[in-house]
Amino acid sequence: MDKNRKPPYLGAAYYPELWDISCVDRDIQLMKETGCNIARIGEFAWGTMEPKEGEYDLSFFRKVVDKLAEENIAVIMCTPSATPPQWLTDKYEETRIMYPSGMRQVHGARRHTCPNSPVMRGFNRKIVTKMAEEFGKDKSIVGWQIDNELHLTNCHCPICRKKFRKWLEEKYQTVENLNKSWGMDRWSLSYDSFDKIIPPDAGWNHPSLSSAWDRFTSDSFVEFSDEQAEILHKYTDAPVGTDMMPYADFSYYDTMKKLDIVQFNHYDDESGMYKITFWLDYIRAIKDRPYWVTETQIGWNGSFNSTKCRPINFCYANSWLSYAAGGEANMYWLWRAHPNGHELGHGAVITSSGRKTFKTKEVERLGEEIQKAADFLNNTAVKLEVALHYSYVASNIFKYAPIADDFKYLDSLKDFYLSLAHNNHINMDVIDHPHNVDGYKYIFSPFLCTLDKYSLRERMIEWVKNGGTWIVGPLSDIVDEHTTKYTDAPFGILEEICGIYCDEQMPSANLPQDMTWYDGSAASGGICYDAFHIVNIVGKIGANSAKPLIIYADGPFKGLCAATETKYGGGRIILLGTALKSDGISKLVSYLKLDAMKASENVYVVNRAGETDSPDRQQGIIALELRGKDGYLELDGEYSDVISSEKLSGKIELAAYTVKVLKKI
Amino acid sequence: MDKNRKPPYLGAAYYPELWDISCVDRDIQLMKETGCNIARIGEFAWGTMEPKEGEYDLSFFRKVVDKLAEENIAVIMCTPSATPPQWLTDKYEETRIMYPSGMRQVHGARRHTCPNSPVMRGFNRKIVTKMAEEFGKDKSIVGWQIDNELHLTNCHCPICRKKFRKWLEEKYQTVENLNKSWGMDRWSLSYDSFDKIIPPDAGWNHPSLSSAWDRFTSDSFVEFSDEQAEILHKYTDAPVGTDMMPYADFSYYDTMKKLDIVQFNHYDDESGMYKITFWLDYIRAIKDRPYWVTETQIGWNGSFNSTKCRPINFCYANSWLSYAAGGEANMYWLWRAHPNGHELGHGAVITSSGRKTFKTKEVERLGEEIQKAADFLNNTAVKLEVALHYSYVASNIFKYAPIADDFKYLDSLKDFYLSLAHNNHINMDVIDHPHNVDGYKYIFSPFLCTLDKYSLRERMIEWVKNGGTWIVGPLSDIVDEHTTKYTDAPFGILEEICGIYCDEQMPSANLPQDMTWYDGSAASGGICYDAFHIVNIVGKIGANSAKPLIIYADGPFKGLCAATETKYGGGRIILLGTALKSDGISKLVSYLKLDAMKASENVYVVNRAGETDSPDRQQGIIALELRGKDGYLELDGEYSDVISSEKLSGKIELAAYTVKVLKKI
Amino acid sequence: MDKNRKPPYLGAAYYPELWDISCVDRDIQLMKETGCNIARIGEFAWGTMEPKEGEYDLSFFRKVVDKLAEENIAVIMCTPSATPPQWLTDKYEETRIMYPSGMRQVHGARRHTCPNSPVMRGFNRKIVTKMAEEFGKDKSIVGWQIDNELHLTNCHCPICRKKFRKWLEEKYQTVENLNKSWGMDRWSLSYDSFDKIIPPDAGWNHPSLSSAWDRFTSDSFVEFSDEQAEILHKYTDAPVGTDMMPYADFSYYDTMKKLDIVQFNHYDDESGMYKITFWLDYIRAIKDRPYWVTETQIGWNGSFNSTKCRPINFCYANSWLSYAAGGEANMYWLWRAHPNGHELGHGAVITSSGRKTFKTKEVERLGEEIQKAADFLNNTAVKLEVALHYSYVASNIFKYAPIADDFKYLDSLKDFYLSLAHNNHINMDVIDHPHNVDGYKYIFSPFLCTLDKYSLRERMIEWVKNGGTWIVGPLSDIVDEHTTKYTDAPFGILEEICGIYCDEQMPSANLPQDMTWYDGSAASGGICYDAFHIVNIVGKIGANSAKPLIIYADGPFKGLCAATETKYGGGRIILLGTALKSDGISKLVSYLKLDAMKASENVYVVNRAGETDSPDRQQGIIALELRGKDGYLELDGEYSDVISSEKLSGKIELAAYTVKVLKKI
Repeated sequence: MDKNRKPPYLGAAYYPELWDISCVDRDIQLMKETGCNIARIGEFAWGTMEPKEGEYDLSFFRKVVDKLAEENIAVIMCTPSATPPQWLTDKYEETRIMYPSGMRQVHGARRHTCPNSPVMRGFNRKIVTKMAEEFGKDKSIVGWQIDNELHLTNCHCPICRKKFRKWLEEKYQTVENLNKSWGMDRWSLSYDSFDKIIPPDAGWNHPSLSSAWDRFTSDSFVEFSDEQAEILHKYTDAPVGTDMMPYADFSYYDTMKKLDIVQFNHYDDESGMYKITFWLDYIRAIKDRPYWVTETQIGWNGSFNSTKCRPINFCYANSWLSYAAGGEANMYWLWRAHPNGHELGHGAVITSSGRKTFKTKEVERLGEEIQKAADFLNNTAVKLEVALHYSYVASNIFKYAPIADDFKYLDSLKDFYLSLAHNNHINMDVIDHPHNVDGYKYIFSPFLCTLDKYSLRERMIEWVKNGGTWIVGPLSDIVDEHTTKYTDAPFGILEEICGIYCDEQMPSANLPQDMTWYDGSAASGGICYDAFHIVNIVGKIGANSAKPLIIYADGPFKGLCAATETKYGGGRIILLGTALKSDGISKLVSYLKLDAMKASENVYVVNRAGETDSPDRQQGIIALELRGKDGYLELDGEYSDVISSEKLSGKIELAAYTVKVLKKI
Repeated sequence: MDKNRKPPYLGAAYYPELWDISCVDRDIQLMKETGCNIARIGEFAWGTMEPKEGEYDLSFFRKVVDKLAEENIAVIMCTPSATPPQWLTDKYEETRIMYPSGMRQVHGARRHTCPNSPVMRGFNRKIVTKMAEEFGKDKSIVGWQIDNELHLTNCHCPICRKKFRKWLEEKYQTVENLNKSWGMDRWSLSYDSFDKIIPPDAGWNHPSLSSAWDRFTSDSFVEFSDEQAEILHKYTDAPVGTDMMPYADFSYYDTMKKLDIVQFNHYDDESGMYKITFWLDYIRAIKDRPYWVTETQIGWNGSFNSTKCRPINFCYANSWLSYAAGGEANMYWLWRAHPNGHELGHGAVITSSGRKTFKTKEVERLGEEIQKAADFLNNTAVKLEVALHYSYVASNIFKYAPIADDFKYLDSLKDFYLSLAHNNHINMDVIDHPHNVDGYKYIFSPFLCTLDKYSLRERMIEWVKNGGTWIVGPLSDIVDEHTTKYTDAPFGILEEICGIYCDEQMPSANLPQDMTWYDGSAASGGICYDAFHIVNIVGKIGANSAKPLIIYADGPFKGLCAATETKYGGGRIILLGTALKSDGISKLVSYLKLDAMKASENVYVVNRAGETDSPDRQQGIIALELRGKDGYLELDGEYSDVISSEKLSGKIELAAYTVKVLKKI
Repeated sequence: MDKNRKPPYLGAAYYPELWDISCVDRDIQLMKETGCNIARIGEFAWGTMEPKEGEYDLSFFRKVVDKLAEENIAVIMCTPSATPPQWLTDKYEETRIMYPSGMRQVHGARRHTCPNSPVMRGFNRKIVTKMAEEFGKDKSIVGWQIDNELHLTNCHCPICRKKFRKWLEEKYQTVENLNKSWGMDRWSLSYDSFDKIIPPDAGWNHPSLSSAWDRFTSDSFVEFSDEQAEILHKYTDAPVGTDMMPYADFSYYDTMKKLDIVQFNHYDDESGMYKITFWLDYIRAIKDRPYWVTETQIGWNGSFNSTKCRPINFCYANSWLSYAAGGEANMYWLWRAHPNGHELGHGAVITSSGRKTFKTKEVERLGEEIQKAADFLNNTAVKLEVALHYSYVASNIFKYAPIADDFKYLDSLKDFYLSLAHNNHINMDVIDHPHNVDGYKYIFSPFLCTLDKYSLRERMIEWVKNGGTWIVGPLSDIVDEHTTKYTDAPFGILEEICGIYCDEQMPSANLPQDMTWYDGSAASGGICYDAFHIVNIVGKIGANSAKPLIIYADGPFKGLCAATETKYGGGRIILLGTALKSDGISKLVSYLKLDAMKASENVYVVNRAGETDSPDRQQGIIALELRGKDGYLELDGEYSDVISSEKLSGKIELAAYTVKVLKKI
């Protein structure tokens, strides 16, 4: 494999099947001109590959792959299961999603198939097998993608309903267990058999039912994807993934379990792009190999129209971020703009008439810079001792039972994250419920409503005993996995292991409470207010009694604690009774003596280092201005700018959308 | 019956069936600690009482009732017809509401049954009979509640449609009558038989049809409720009611006709709680016995989440209001917070882990105070000479034909009410269309669009002849009960009995008109402008000609009247052609020489007195600050504070959510 | 025919069938009192004319027509096909529109019939034939109206679906052609036969499909209307039209093709009434005979309620506009207000109780003035050399593919129009895609996305060659009729004929670009930015190279052109790359040396003149204040006020809603 086929990868989604084959040569030429070295193909091309039932024809894609290979353009080959041809969904109508009304989705867009239809699954397996046979051994194909943007599309067909009931039966064994877990005596809702359970519809649905239904659909899609992965793994050694937005109501960890590589799509504009670091910190932690950003926009999004144009150099910085935070690929959607159809307004690397644009220039610049930085990028990684929980289990529960007033889990968690990562420049992994916690020194778990599932309760206790510092709450450990509150205490275990008793709970923040830190400075909270008093647990499991960190200074909870710290085994637990605002989190960071760079909050700084045991270990940082305004960074030593070869130290300025790749010297 | 079982009652909705029986003792203990002396049970517990078809088991509730009785906690027993068990709605799908599409509502929440299903009705009768047999003679059961929060849930099943057609046939006799009454020649809408009438669906529905459909559903629910009342009355002497919000699109008077006691639920927060006096003035007037507030919130509402926390002492004042305005019970929803399911976020007297909260303290204080005030409360009542019409008939018509621009009957009526009751401190009964008008001296009837039904036209004329002062208009007497305007004049009888001719009508207020009162001071109006000239009717029915009260000073109606006063028999009619604003209503109050306390508008003052012929007649007022800010009250003599035993006179201050129970001395 | 039956016509929609026949005499008397000389009848009266299937009874309308004729009130007779009787839609349910769900619309309002149902069509033909036989020769009937307010009501019944497929087959011949034109290889959407095509439903529909479906429905309604016109033309010489709002998603030119007279309804309030000149300029151009305004409001609109009252004299000015801009009739909806039903709140010339109002006075004044101005109105017309394209073809494409960010074709086009017509007082015809362009000197074609259909491309080139000045762009010539962009250039022909190359396109205006005019003054644009460089085409078709009109002064397009001017044949093309704001359009007007009156922008000035070869040719203007505030007009000579007979010259003031009819002397 030659130089071009190695990471860092830069490229785009490419739909050659929409154009004449003669167009491909021109496209490849333009790819090379713009510094692109990878193309993602096949995604929606089932109709081209199997124009009639059972008549497979991969010759067009064979030609395309060969042409790309010839010019050293790497390929990601995608399975087209998101868009079966019209002949298929017409002849086999059971392949299309059924609405609660009994009507089926009409063919005409995409992702309209039932995840559990055996007929659909059978067709999927066949087309994937054919593709794997044809392309499995191609050296230029550096990865595979299953389907496209799997997301929560519930189906109410008889097969799905039956399977859902079976899924519930496997989980609860008896319907009495389910009734009890969900509290179905209320309103005489109890089912007398699993067969009577109807998935939630429009209306006032039971939150436990709604959450279960989503988890079932998640599991269905995991199966759907796993089936394809199993086939591909037989035929190819290239890594297999599926491009998703992990915030798509799915268990992303379950989805990734049998897959090899994380493929990530994101499209945030200038108002939110800087927050994408949350997701990069999340996806980086999942697998041991660097993720790929499979889709991001170049100039503007669009479907039937183009949307607002991103600012100049936004594309450049947004793309650099993919590599900086630990990925090895950045790809655009799409290479050549569609001339018609649903997404005709979407920006692309080149226009539908094959012309470059002012946005293409940013890609060209990026292409040059990542080649200069390739050695640094390929020989350093992001390895951290701080983690923050973002739990699909919690998300699934909170979706239907937000519990606190106007509480949105993801928004509040992101606020917490941004205070840590952007205001305080703490690099962290964002880890999901099942993620291994060993190796971290600090774990933040706000809003982690349940400790059920994946033995998280036991693992966290063990980890604390072994020396970890666990910052937990508010709204953590308050329900079980069935969305049922504990009835003997407001928490499952936190009262016991923190040595406190929760006297009061105010599940909203519309009546702000006066609070002070242990040192007398003012504190402020949000979302909810829990109020604790301290209980003597000295001597228990190596614990001494909790000490107050924040105390209510006035109002109905006066004298009670809003935050406490408790030694537990070799570690400690900081329990938060309210959602600290940004200043409170900074206070906590300094209390915990967490070490970090100094920079303006619009400058995102990623610490990177090579393997500690490597003789020529490289170390450094990548700093990116992500909010389109002036910023600064205070260097803690001497650095060499990998792009310009300039030497830098002290406080440096970063103009809007500037990127600095700095190797420590 | 011992002391605790007498009014004033304080308590909560209690769902012991969701908890282990062992929990009941602890709950009773807590009830007593918090001053609660009544519990409302059984409401949604059909599943517990009839776990399988025909297998009735009331033993759990027998135990609960006995335990409560033992501790002198009174009970309201509720019929569970709002939540039939899943086995029932599954086996007999005709019991579930049908949508216009033909689909039936899915089991999974509540109030999802067809009001007219004979099968559903049969099951209702059976469970109610069983309950009545078991509990009808229990001395500790001080009242019964039918169903829960009946509200307008139209059902499109064949049975309902057929019954609706029959209902129309009974009303109109011939389809030609109906066509004529509704003006169905327009757009060729005429039906050729009653069988062709389809209830309104989404779309541009005929207002007469829409109103009729709602009235039919109202009648269906009255029947639904009456059937249960009839059974209960056979077995028990305790009063029977049904807990409702009377603003639920129902004929509340029809609903109450065969019931004994008004049970009222309300949940307004601090932005609207003070307006609840409107509803208390309405429900107080219905029956001769004091009403019960069966549900109000304690700290916050909530379904899948908790909502904003009510301010400190809000619960206290809101609860006191129940007694002050003439009720003898105040109950919370709910006693113990649900740990899961639809309403897990709703506040309660104790938490789902059985703990008291800072809100519980307000209940405890209330519990003590109402006992202190019990003698005053039980021996005084609210008896008034002023009334305001709030008509279900008008409401039902205005719902589908608001007639004036942006007119909302209830909102405008409440504005009118608040000007009288809160700005001018006039205590009044709010009376519905069928209510007896004898005994009142002043009746306000703004926006009373029709005088049809319940002989209101004849009763009002008679009442005026006998000396009443009737303040009527605007938008009064403008249509018949079929939502049809009069075609010979804009009013049915008002031109004739007021001796005026309506020259002009402007059905909106976007072009404000200059007006002056009879004394030259400026007047202002709203909603619409009618303009009259005076017609000579001297001598007719003891009338002399109208005199102008308000005159248009400029604009297209210059020189015409906006309000007139006409003597009629022994009384008089004040006709309003526009909706007076608050200052205009104050002007009217002083013109009418209505007597009232002086207080700030945030202090609500209720005048209470014992029977005039009682030897130890008590008299006094209850004053409540209802808007969370400082206020005052000017006492018209010397009073004794029933709670503190302090003596008070002159101007007194009331801080936010203060309540004063003041006995005249 | 006597004086009253000649234009100018003033009248209202009249529904005598809703009232007793005895009421007609009184109505006629009132019509005469108010200056009304025309009544529009029959519109929704099918039920009266055919009370039972096949039993026709036109005697009521015969009486009405005769009574009106006797009093010299002219009549427009309307076919009632928008409201078939209930017996019809009940017995023949296939006559009612089917929703995508398979349910059919319920009888109960209007326009609820399938446009393609052969049964419905058959009934229509029969009732129209009966009416034509009865009334075709009546001299007092001066015109016929087909149906009422035809608008886009798609029907999903099997007949419509089948016909739609046939319609597509006729258009595309083969399904492969359709797949190719619409780009259906993407997402494997290709159909394998026309039978598989499903009309768009809720969801993410293909824009080419959506546009085709609307065009099909448009064609269906044209057929629906043509069928009635054909019958009427057999029996009557009076002109036949159909009253519509041309902005009803229909091809208005196709609808009018076989009809004789434009009938136009409009209801804008004071915030938008002045913009109605756009539509008057559009409808005036369609036919050689003056249009009729068949519906406008008098005092307020309304359905279940009245809406805001129009300002005093609004009705007067709004009505005068009908005649001023080239029409010969102004009619109100409606004569006598409905007492009940769907539109009971709508204002009328007289109230439902038969009384005149302050609004009636404005009608009476108008009635007098138009008689004074009759000679001037009847002997002058509006004939122009400037035109602006408003294309149904473009509208239909943009509806589903707006292409630019937040682009709304009609809104942006109206902004363009208002700058020309109201800010610069340029009188113009607004012409549709098929309209003949000969005779115009200047044609503005902004946002004319396609030049396909009706040979517009060829006609425009020819017209320019013959000396026309064509101002075209932005967003013009960018797609073909199938909503497919050109893939070799961003334009179909504009690059070639303008001698430019489009280097850049920014399909949004959120990043404003600095631009300067050829003379150095600042320019500003909107909606999108195209950037061109000039290509040498000297000598081609009599062309010399383009010259820059506007140049990008900074930013990514610096140095490129935003507007160019190119000589082409005997004419020239001004290509706009961005949407000029009002000041830019004024600049362009002065660059083009277009001649116009000077007046404030709230004064709308219409130039009128008699035939040039007439010996006693009249000339003059009608000036109307349309925005309810003070304005002025600078007269270019001496004029005589046709109403007051006053002589006027120089600058004159016009108060709110003033109208001046000024004959040049």
